[in-house]
Amino acid sequence: MKIVKDFLWKHNTSVKDFLSEIGSIGFQSVELKNASDLIVKMKGSGAKIYLTFTSNMVTSGLRGFFAQLINLKMADIIVTTAGAIEEDFMKATGANFTIKNFNTDDYALHEKGENRVGNLIIRNEDYTKFEDKMLSILNELYEKKKVWTPCELISELGKIIDDENSILHQAERNNVPVFCPGITDGAIGFHLFMFKEKHPDFVIDVAGDFKNIVFASNHDEKKAIISLGGGISKHHAILSGLLNGGFDYALYMTTANASSGSMSGATTQEAKSWGKIKDDSDAVTVIGDVTVNFPLAMCRSLDLLKKGGII
Amino acid sequence: MKIVKDFLWKHNTSVKDFLSEIGSIGFQSVELKNASDLIVKMKGSGAKIYLTFTSNMVTSGLRGFFAQLINLKMADIIVTTAGAIEEDFMKATGANFTIKNFNTDDYALHEKGENRVGNLIIRNEDYTKFEDKMLSILNELYEKKKVWTPCELISELGKIIDDENSILHQAERNNVPVFCPGITDGAIGFHLFMFKEKHPDFVIDVAGDFKNIVFASNHDEKKAIISLGGGISKHHAILSGLLNGGFDYALYMTTANASSGSMSGATTQEAKSWGKIKDDSDAVTVIGDVTVNFPLAMCRSLDLLKKGGII
Amino acid sequence: MKIVKDFLWKHNTSVKDFLSEIGSIGFQSVELKNASDLIVKMKGSGAKIYLTFTSNMVTSGLRGFFAQLINLKMADIIVTTAGAIEEDFMKATGANFTIKNFNTDDYALHEKGENRVGNLIIRNEDYTKFEDKMLSILNELYEKKKVWTPCELISELGKIIDDENSILHQAERNNVPVFCPGITDGAIGFHLFMFKEKHPDFVIDVAGDFKNIVFASNHDEKKAIISLGGGISKHHAILSGLLNGGFDYALYMTTANASSGSMSGATTQEAKSWGKIKDDSDAVTVIGDVTVNFPLAMCRSLDLLKKGGII
Amino acid sequence: MKIVKDFLWKHNTSVKDFLSEIGSIGFQSVELKNASDLIVKMKGSGAKIYLTFTSNMVTSGLRGFFAQLINLKMADIIVTTAGAIEEDFMKATGANFTIKNFNTDDYALHEKGENRVGNLIIRNEDYTKFEDKMLSILNELYEKKKVWTPCELISELGKIIDDENSILHQAERNNVPVFCPGITDGAIGFHLFMFKEKHPDFVIDVAGDFKNIVFASNHDEKKAIISLGGGISKHHAILSGLLNGGFDYALYMTTANASSGSMSGATTQEAKSWGKIKDDSDAVTVIGDVTVNFPLAMCRSLDLLKKGGII
Repeated sequence: MKIVKDFLWKHNTSVKDFLSEIGSIGFQSVELKNASDLIVKMKGSGAKIYLTFTSNMVTSGLRGFFAQLINLKMADIIVTTAGAIEEDFMKATGANFTIKNFNTDDYALHEKGENRVGNLIIRNEDYTKFEDKMLSILNELYEKKKVWTPCELISELGKIIDDENSILHQAERNNVPVFCPGITDGAIGFHLFMFKEKHPDFVIDVAGDFKNIVFASNHDEKKAIISLGGGISKHHAILSGLLNGGFDYALYMTTANASSGSMSGATTQEAKSWGKIKDDSDAVTVIGDVTVNFPLAMCRSLDLLKKGGII
Repeated sequence: MKIVKDFLWKHNTSVKDFLSEIGSIGFQSVELKNASDLIVKMKGSGAKIYLTFTSNMVTSGLRGFFAQLINLKMADIIVTTAGAIEEDFMKATGANFTIKNFNTDDYALHEKGENRVGNLIIRNEDYTKFEDKMLSILNELYEKKKVWTPCELISELGKIIDDENSILHQAERNNVPVFCPGITDGAIGFHLFMFKEKHPDFVIDVAGDFKNIVFASNHDEKKAIISLGGGISKHHAILSGLLNGGFDYALYMTTANASSGSMSGATTQEAKSWGKIKDDSDAVTVIGDVTVNFPLAMCRSLDLLKKGGII
Repeated sequence: MKIVKDFLWKHNTSVKDFLSEIGSIGFQSVELKNASDLIVKMKGSGAKIYLTFTSNMVTSGLRGFFAQLINLKMADIIVTTAGAIEEDFMKATGANFTIKNFNTDDYALHEKGENRVGNLIIRNEDYTKFEDKMLSILNELYEKKKVWTPCELISELGKIIDDENSILHQAERNNVPVFCPGITDGAIGFHLFMFKEKHPDFVIDVAGDFKNIVFASNHDEKKAIISLGGGISKHHAILSGLLNGGFDYALYMTTANASSGSMSGATTQEAKSWGKIKDDSDAVTVIGDVTVNFPLAMCRSLDLLKKGGII
Repeated sequence: MKIVKDFLWKHNTSVKDFLSEIGSIGFQSVELKNASDLIVKMKGSGAKIYLTFTSNMVTSGLRGFFAQLINLKMADIIVTTAGAIEEDFMKATGANFTIKNFNTDDYALHEKGENRVGNLIIRNEDYTKFEDKMLSILNELYEKKKVWTPCELISELGKIIDDENSILHQAERNNVPVFCPGITDGAIGFHLFMFKEKHPDFVIDVAGDFKNIVFASNHDEKKAIISLGGGISKHHAILSGLLNGGFDYALYMTTANASSGSMSGATTQEAKSWGKIKDDSDAVTVIGDVTVNFPLAMCRSLDLLKKGGII
C-alpha cells in the first residue's frame, strides 16, 4: 500500500530526487515517476527500445535530447515523421527556430515569412536553404542507385550531417535505423516530386522499409516502446512491434484523450490485451505536455542508470 | 451584433432548424453552425473540396457518410490513412465491427481475438480474411505493372468493391482521387512486405503521388479543406494545398488542443496567415468529437444545398 | 451485440431520428444516444431529477432551455452557481449578451466595458443595472426577516421576474428549489457585502440550505442526476444525493478529463461504486461541449417522452 | 529574439537548472519557466499573493507544499473549497490517503469502504473520525458565539491542529486568511446541518467573508494571483481581486481548455483586459497537470528567491 506523502521543497534538490518525491503526490506525478521507473526497467532488462516522436518535438529543443539518447544507447529504433527529418537537417545546417507566443498576429507573421508551430517560429528562408541542399543530395543519391527506402535515404542524410545534436547524425553513428513511413508528407515530399520530374525512375520504396522495421528486432528478444505524441509514428511502431511478438514494456506520453477513439489518445490500458505485459507497472500512460514530462522522467532515469553503471 | 438567444425545444424539429437555433447559444454550438454555413459557402463557390479523415472514423459508421458525400460531389480530393483504406475494404467485403464500452477488460478481449478502438471492436478473423484477399489482388496488380503509387493501388481496390457505402467504391465511380501518404502503416503494409518477399521489384511509389496531389487542383481555382481529426492526413492536405496557392476556405474539427504545438491541435487561426482567407467566417475550428459534430453540421449543409438546388 | 452502422444523410431528418442514427456510428455519438435514452428512462421511472449546470451555460442560450425543462417537469431540483443566478436575473430584466470570437483583442474589449466569457460578451452596464435592482430587493427582503438561505433568496428573485425564459421564474412557478452553495461568489456577493455594511444583522445562512437539499428528495424514492459541466454545482448535487441514498441514474456531460482527479472531470464510472446503479446503461458520461450535446440529447428525449404521453 | 535550444541531459542536474534549460525547448516548457520567473517577480515586487487551489490537490501530497509555502510567506491569501479544508484536517489528525490506479474495479472499492479520487483513495472510516471531531468542535465554537464566517471557522480549526504540514495550521500561525465561499459543499456541510438541527441559531455567515476578502488587500498595493485548477476558488479570488483594483501579476495552471467558456479553462489572455497588466510576461497560463507543473515551477522560484535573500 502506497501512501500519499506531503511534498516539501528542499533547497537545491536534484531532478532525480525531485521526481522521486513528487511520485508520492498523486494524479499525473505518480504516473510520471512510474514512467521514469519503467524506463530504468526496460533499459536494465536489455530490451530493444523503440522511440517514436512527432515533428513538433523536433521543432522544439527536444531534438538535441533525442540525439543524446541515441548516443547513450537509450533508443534502438526510431519512428518519426517527415517534418522531424527535415527540421533536424535544417537545424544541423544552420537554421535557428525561435520562441514567440501562442497568441500572435498570424497575418503579421505571414508578412514576415514566419511560420508558427504553437509558440515556435520557423522562417521561410530556412525552407529555401533546405530545398537547395536536398536537390543537390538527391542528385548524388541518384547516381548511386534509383530505388531508395526512406530509412536508407535518412541514413545518407545522417552521413552528411556533422552535428553532435542531430538525431540523424547520432542515429547514423550508432547504427540506429530511423523509420519514416510518411516520408513524403513534408517539404521533402515536394523535393522528391521536383527531382522525379527530371528523373522519373527515381523511386522511394516505402514498402521496402516494412521488412526493415519488422526485422529491426527479432521475435524472441525483449522489446519496449516509448511513444511521445500520437499519429503515424506511434501507430507504426506499435504495429511493427506487434507483428514481431509484441512489447514487454510500453510507455505512452500524450496530450490527447481516449474519448475519440484516436490512436493519439490511446492509452497503454489496451497494451495489456497484447498478452505479453505481465505486470501493471510495465505499461504506463502519462497525460500532459511532452516538453516538460519527457525530460523530467528521462533525466531521472539516466541519473539512475548512470549510478547503476548501466549507461 | 449577434445576440445570444434562449434556445427552446420545439417538437419534432428538423436537424437543419435545430442547428440554426443552437447557433445562437454560444461556445462550440456557435462554431458548429459557422462550420455548417462555411460548408454551404465553399460548395456554393465551386471550390475544390479536400476532405481528410483518420482511420478511427472509418472504423466508425462515418464511413458510409463519407462515401455518400463523395457521391454527392461534396469531396473532390480525399486524404486519409492506411487503416481507413483497409477497414473500408474489410467492411465492403463482409466485416462487421461492433460497439462495446470505453471501459472493458482488455485481457478478456485479447482472449477472444477482439481489438478495441475506443468503444468499438474489430475481430482478428476479419484481418485474416482481408489478408487473403489482398495477396490475391496484389498478384493481379503485379501482372499489370511493377510500380504503383498509393493512389493508383487504392483506385484498383475501389474497382473491385461493389458496395454503395464504400469510400473506395464511390471515389472510383466519381473519379475522386484518394491519397494515402502513409500507405504502409497498416495491415496493408504487412501484405505489401510479404508480397515483396517473392517479388522484390514490386514497388509502392509514394513520391509519385506527390505530383498527383499537387496537380489534383490547379493553382487558380478556389480550394477548400474540411479536415476531420489530425495527423498525417490533415498535414498532407494542408501542405499540398499550400503548394498550390492555398485554401480559400478552411474547416477543422478536432478533439486535440493547441497547447502542445501538434498538427492535430492546430486551429484555423493560423490559416489566416496563408494570405488567402479574406474573411474570418472563412476559417472555422470546432473542438469536439467528430462523430457528433460532423454529421450534424454536414446534414444541415446538405439540406440547405438541396433546397438551393446545388446538390 | 450492437453493430457499427454506416450513417447516411436523409433529407430533412428530424433531430430525433438523427440522434437515433448516429447512435450506431461509434465513439461519443454512441454515448450521446445512450444519454438521451437514459433521460427517457429516468423520467419514465418517476425518479426525482437533479439538474446541475455552471454559470457559463446561463451566459449562453441554454438558459431558456433550462427554464423550459423546469416547466416541462424535467428537473425537480436545481444546483448551480452565483453567476447563473445573477445572469438569469439580468437577462430577465433586459440585458442582452452578444456573440463574438474566442480570439479577440482583450485590451480593446476592456476599453469598451465588455467582459469576455469564451466567445460571448457581457457589458459592464448590465452589471450596474443589476446592482441597482439587487440593493432595492435586499431592502425589501430585510424588512421581512434578517436571515435568509440562498434557496429562499433565489425564490424571492423568481417571484419578481416575469419572463417565461427565466430559470428563476419557472423554478418559482413550478416549486422547484434552486440551490446555490456558493451564493457569494459573484456580483451578488458584492451586493450582499455592501448591504451588510449598513445592516450587519442581515445574514445569508448557507448551512440552512444543506437541510433543504437533503430533504428535497426522500431516501426511498428514485433519484437521477443530470450534471452539465463540473465544479461546485456538480459536487454538491452528488454529495446531497449520496447522503440521501444515492442515485439510480447518473448522466454527466463535461469537457474536462479524468486525468487530474478533479470533480469536473470525474466520470460516471465511479458512480457504479455507490452501490445503487444496477445496469451499465444507467450511468453515462459524454465528453464534449454541452452547448451542442445537451440540446441534441435532450430534444430527442423530449420528442420521445411526448410521443409516449409522458410529458 | 529567443532561440529554441537543444536540451541535453547533465548528470545530477538541479531542479533549478533543469527548468531554466527546458525553458528553451518550446510549447508548455517555455510557459512553465515563464511561470517560475513570474513567481520570482511577484514575490520580489512585494505584491500580495492570492493562492487558490481545488480540493483534489489537498487530497494529493501538494497539501504539505501549500503549508510550507504559507510558512515561507509565499501566499498571503488562500481561497479554496470545503473538501480542501476537511481533508487537510483529516490528514492533520491521522488519516492516510493511498495511491492506486485510474483504472480500478469501482464496485470492489465500494465494498471495502474506499472512495476514489482519480488514482487516490480516501477511506470511509476517516470521514467518520472527522465527523466525531467536528461535532465536538462545533459545540465549543457555539459556546463562544452563534454567527461565524467560514474564514473564522477555518481559523479555529487551524488553532486546534498541531501539524507542520497542515495548511490550516500554517495559515493560522502566519495570519494568512483562508477563504472558502462554498464551505457547505463537503462533509463539513453535513456536520453543520446536523449541528443546526439542535442549535437552529448557529449560523455560517458567508456574506460576512466577502468584506473580509475584499479588505484582505488594499486597493493600492500590488496584487498577484496563483490559481491552480479552476472552479469556485479560482473565480472567487479573481472576483475579489478585481473589486480591489485588479491584479498586477496572474499565473493560471489548469488542465481545462478554453473552448467551453468555463472559468476553469479561462486563460490569462483575458487578464490583459483588466487594464493593470503592463507586460505580457506578467500573465502566464500553463496547461497541464498541477501535480507535476506546480512543484517544478515553484521549487525553482524558491531556490532563486533564497539565493537572492528574499526568502
